[in-house]
Amino acid sequence: MIAILSNQAPEEQLQEVIRVIEKEGLTVHLSRGADRTVVGLIGKAEPRLAEHLRQMKGVEDVVKISKSYKLASRDFHPENTVIQIGDVKIGGGELVVMGGPCAVESAEQIDEIARLVKAAGGQVLRGGAFKPRTGPYSFQGVGVEGLIMMAEAGKKHGLLTITEVMTPEYVDICAEYADILQIGTRNMQNFDLLRKLGTCGRPVLLKRGFSATYDELLNAAEYILAGGNPDVMLCERGIRTFESYTRNTLDLAAIPALQSLSHLPVISDPSHGTGRRELVEPMAKASVAAGADGLIIEMHTDPDNSMTGDGVQSLFPDQFAGLLRDLEQLSPIVGKSFA
Amino acid sequence: MIAILSNQAPEEQLQEVIRVIEKEGLTVHLSRGADRTVVGLIGKAEPRLAEHLRQMKGVEDVVKISKSYKLASRDFHPENTVIQIGDVKIGGGELVVMGGPCAVESAEQIDEIARLVKAAGGQVLRGGAFKPRTGPYSFQGVGVEGLIMMAEAGKKHGLLTITEVMTPEYVDICAEYADILQIGTRNMQNFDLLRKLGTCGRPVLLKRGFSATYDELLNAAEYILAGGNPDVMLCERGIRTFESYTRNTLDLAAIPALQSLSHLPVISDPSHGTGRRELVEPMAKASVAAGADGLIIEMHTDPDNSMTGDGVQSLFPDQFAGLLRDLEQLSPIVGKSFA
Amino acid sequence: MIAILSNQAPEEQLQEVIRVIEKEGLTVHLSRGADRTVVGLIGKAEPRLAEHLRQMKGVEDVVKISKSYKLASRDFHPENTVIQIGDVKIGGGELVVMGGPCAVESAEQIDEIARLVKAAGGQVLRGGAFKPRTGPYSFQGVGVEGLIMMAEAGKKHGLLTITEVMTPEYVDICAEYADILQIGTRNMQNFDLLRKLGTCGRPVLLKRGFSATYDELLNAAEYILAGGNPDVMLCERGIRTFESYTRNTLDLAAIPALQSLSHLPVISDPSHGTGRRELVEPMAKASVAAGADGLIIEMHTDPDNSMTGDGVQSLFPDQFAGLLRDLEQLSPIVGKSFA
Amino acid sequence: MIAILSNQAPEEQLQEVIRVIEKEGLTVHLSRGADRTVVGLIGKAEPRLAEHLRQMKGVEDVVKISKSYKLASRDFHPENTVIQIGDVKIGGGELVVMGGPCAVESAEQIDEIARLVKAAGGQVLRGGAFKPRTGPYSFQGVGVEGLIMMAEAGKKHGLLTITEVMTPEYVDICAEYADILQIGTRNMQNFDLLRKLGTCGRPVLLKRGFSATYDELLNAAEYILAGGNPDVMLCERGIRTFESYTRNTLDLAAIPALQSLSHLPVISDPSHGTGRRELVEPMAKASVAAGADGLIIEMHTDPDNSMTGDGVQSLFPDQFAGLLRDLEQLSPIVGKSFA
Repeated sequence: MIAILSNQAPEEQLQEVIRVIEKEGLTVHLSRGADRTVVGLIGKAEPRLAEHLRQMKGVEDVVKISKSYKLASRDFHPENTVIQIGDVKIGGGELVVMGGPCAVESAEQIDEIARLVKAAGGQVLRGGAFKPRTGPYSFQGVGVEGLIMMAEAGKKHGLLTITEVMTPEYVDICAEYADILQIGTRNMQNFDLLRKLGTCGRPVLLKRGFSATYDELLNAAEYILAGGNPDVMLCERGIRTFESYTRNTLDLAAIPALQSLSHLPVISDPSHGTGRRELVEPMAKASVAAGADGLIIEMHTDPDNSMTGDGVQSLFPDQFAGLLRDLEQLSPIVGKSFA
Repeated sequence: MIAILSNQAPEEQLQEVIRVIEKEGLTVHLSRGADRTVVGLIGKAEPRLAEHLRQMKGVEDVVKISKSYKLASRDFHPENTVIQIGDVKIGGGELVVMGGPCAVESAEQIDEIARLVKAAGGQVLRGGAFKPRTGPYSFQGVGVEGLIMMAEAGKKHGLLTITEVMTPEYVDICAEYADILQIGTRNMQNFDLLRKLGTCGRPVLLKRGFSATYDELLNAAEYILAGGNPDVMLCERGIRTFESYTRNTLDLAAIPALQSLSHLPVISDPSHGTGRRELVEPMAKASVAAGADGLIIEMHTDPDNSMTGDGVQSLFPDQFAGLLRDLEQLSPIVGKSFA
Repeated sequence: MIAILSNQAPEEQLQEVIRVIEKEGLTVHLSRGADRTVVGLIGKAEPRLAEHLRQMKGVEDVVKISKSYKLASRDFHPENTVIQIGDVKIGGGELVVMGGPCAVESAEQIDEIARLVKAAGGQVLRGGAFKPRTGPYSFQGVGVEGLIMMAEAGKKHGLLTITEVMTPEYVDICAEYADILQIGTRNMQNFDLLRKLGTCGRPVLLKRGFSATYDELLNAAEYILAGGNPDVMLCERGIRTFESYTRNTLDLAAIPALQSLSHLPVISDPSHGTGRRELVEPMAKASVAAGADGLIIEMHTDPDNSMTGDGVQSLFPDQFAGLLRDLEQLSPIVGKSFA
Repeated sequence: MIAILSNQAPEEQLQEVIRVIEKEGLTVHLSRGADRTVVGLIGKAEPRLAEHLRQMKGVEDVVKISKSYKLASRDFHPENTVIQIGDVKIGGGELVVMGGPCAVESAEQIDEIARLVKAAGGQVLRGGAFKPRTGPYSFQGVGVEGLIMMAEAGKKHGLLTITEVMTPEYVDICAEYADILQIGTRNMQNFDLLRKLGTCGRPVLLKRGFSATYDELLNAAEYILAGGNPDVMLCERGIRTFESYTRNTLDLAAIPALQSLSHLPVISDPSHGTGRRELVEPMAKASVAAGADGLIIEMHTDPDNSMTGDGVQSLFPDQFAGLLRDLEQLSPIVGKSFA
């Protein structure tokens, strides 16, 4: 349930509404927009409370939210969430590009790639220090050292950094070194990890589980939001279908659908979404045309020798740079600016 | 197996190659490009034939095609197939838009919609006279009368027409009235129908089965091509997945993937691909950005009262017109012209 | 809508009910059970008609059927449909086994296999004369000659025969030679074919489309039933999923689910359902344990040289015979008899 | 790579083989069967090592295992793994039944259900203390208290206990109170959790991710095995498909397929696998007929008021008892004993 107040209403009316709600043992979340403030009630509200609130001063409307997620829904937060990190704004009309290797391999590698990402016009450096791998004998990432290498490369080249965190106990150290924490597709419903992210103090990029519905993705986001962290990006990265030519089926309708159901920014990952280098460029453009707020793209200076074997979906540096030039042209046509 | 001859080679060398192949009991298909002519061998070729051909005058190379489809493959026909119908060219760099109602309902309805499609800048009028319906008690289309109404509306407003044919016995009558024959998703592997289309004398738009792989779609096209009809368009219209918010999951990676595997034009259907009106516009744009050669879009003057109940995915006329204005801007950015 | 009359009610009351319904322009279908007769109304019934019928003599109840299929639903026909062909009853508590090759290859082949099916305890000989093939260059079946060979083998060894029909124009000839007509997975929604089967005079085995829902399968059956043919068997043959180790995922829950939604017999096809010989036996047993009314199983005397290349899922004759001995033991445990 | 030694070979030959392998920096895993001992090499072996080993005394064969999982494969461990816990043997030809509520709700509830599971013939009490829930506002389980209640109920009624653990930090406490640890479908690829289970000292029931392939499931098991814990059961619990009548599609072919690929016991979960009470009984029987080593089934004394809302898939106690009586009859037919 949400109560909607005009911003014309004096602050004491809002405080009185909050007092009434908390007296019922419910939790309050506030969403202050330009014209209206939305008061979200978390917990089981009695019907008579709705009646009571509706008659209070300053309250314009009281609406029952039938979705299982509340804070993630556009009903509760009608305006887009814009996540600002340093100079970069995500969700605010600017197309954000995150680029980098699947895994951090060495200080030289990540430094060189950071330089190329920056030169091409990207804003965020991606790179995995801890890698989720199907089998236990595959390369599992270089660990904390990789975090440090990436942080240095990001700082040197003026890029934000994003890295994947796989388990609650590593959230703090990842949050120390990276600007954005990424939750991988296999962990979208790792609920203890999600809870921990609610208090990590960093924006989170939450990847859709490869067989998760929109509803489940938004409920996963709700765990983080309900924990107190409002800065969540949703990421479409392809779902599992019967088609085996591509690694996954990139579901681009998820972009406008999630933007309609939610106020959170939506990022597209055409690299994992296709698993084939030659499809990354057309699907990156299609993502932007579908309204994506940003892209996360694998790029590697030597894809054929990448340590994860994911090189087959990594762009070469010149392809990455060429793509960004094309996106610069495309963005304004669909109402986005390109920094 | 294919034999590749330079176009510099005199015609008698080509004829000699054909003679040698046919003597082995195989069928020959020719694909004449700007610089090279590709001779396709249909049937089981002995290895020594490859050797023989390779040493013949004029033959540059002999290549084994390991795919199960031959004529549909880009190996056999390296240049794009461009289908010309009247003034309209499909597959040649021009974005083609097909619009219209799910079903022809009356002469007035189809005439008014044709007028709106033309005014908005579309080239082809779509409309079903025979409707494939899940259950036997649903509206099954107005039949042959609908074909006539649509043909008249198309002629009056200067539009080509496309209509679905569901069974071999109706191919001739549909070919009499419509410029393009459409094969629906449920009939992609109706092999007798495909065979009949090989000799129908009309271009065919072949929709991907909602659970068909790219390979199966191209094999279905091969049936039509092998029957002697070179004018096949492939159509991505969404596949069936676990996500139920959308009616189907529009697999846009199919567009560049099919264009890489094949020389046939690829059309996208964001209406059936999403099943939700508000997603048609972003997915239409995304389709064009992904490289689609054309779009087929449902538009209705009164979608809430459409006879098929599919109105929920039909655009209103002003939305259709607005979308085409946007596509006009977008097309040149991705290297397409908009007539 | 259905009206339910006690069989105690005199025939003239039933006739009066029918007269009232037909006066409204609706079609009547009768289902006479042991205790009750169910009168099905096909067409759009006015609410006041329900009221009227409810007050008529002999009418026990009037029920609205909300499902899109009517004649296929258990609401309309509460007792199991039992299809009798010669001495064989399908759906009546007897486990029916259909066995044979993917394709009829020669008179000798089908005769020898028929002998083995009969010796093992099977009742029906399967074999394809017309084969649906993904690509146009694969073996397409031996055609009408194959129908004749199979009919002779069946007659000689005392077996019923079942064969696939792919297109409306071949329904009559297939019905002439085979006891049961099979509709393949790719033709489940070939609506013109379904309509033709409504008047073919033969029982039909309708395979579930490899991506069809239960609801769609029952609606496809409804086409045949509504056409006047009450003898339809449903067949679960595996659906398409992301798992590629098996050719399909055999959905055994479909068996009890369809038996609960419908009165039609349900047959399981563990050969196509798994695509792997070593999984056929356990899945055949599991099908029977789940309540299947019958099985359709591929068996070949020389699977590695079968003309369709489907031998990999065909049992050897001794495996087939061993399986039937096991099923003989298993059947009574789950309330089925084994002839 | 594995080296196979006859058990006739003296122990010193085995030790010498081990010495040679470890000198190369590889890890050794031993699997001692009745007739042969299999020495597994974990790590990247040089081809000349294979040659060297093949010529050593006592070595019968050296085989390259091409699968990404080794310890989980039947190549490495040809005999069935039998997990013994107290008197109960899992994987050894005895059908094991685990029953109980979705969630532990109170001491009285779990005690009463334990009594009923025991009386019906079950061996293991299931019950969740920590519940993975799609949204943050749903009942999340009663926590550690629930573990204690269940441990007491199990002890009192002579049942083993199984409970789900969701995060590495709770592995120790769950291992303290429960006999078997369950990994839920959403955590199948929670790799840090899997690693922790390698040293937990308890058998693990690993549920297949609802969109995981057999290969991915076996690789997940490999994480646990490689960590030193040989006691892993695989659990088929249904996969996500387009069919929405059932909650999941129970893939019973997974049972014989996994038993062929691996030596680990396979358990079936028809409750989550169907999500519908009326389908649990037929699918439980089908699971046993397909060769399952055990079943895990939800049973509740008051399903309509269960705290998780999963009651719709829980059996009533009398249904549970009736099912076990039927399984007692069925088991010997498929070569299983029923304790």
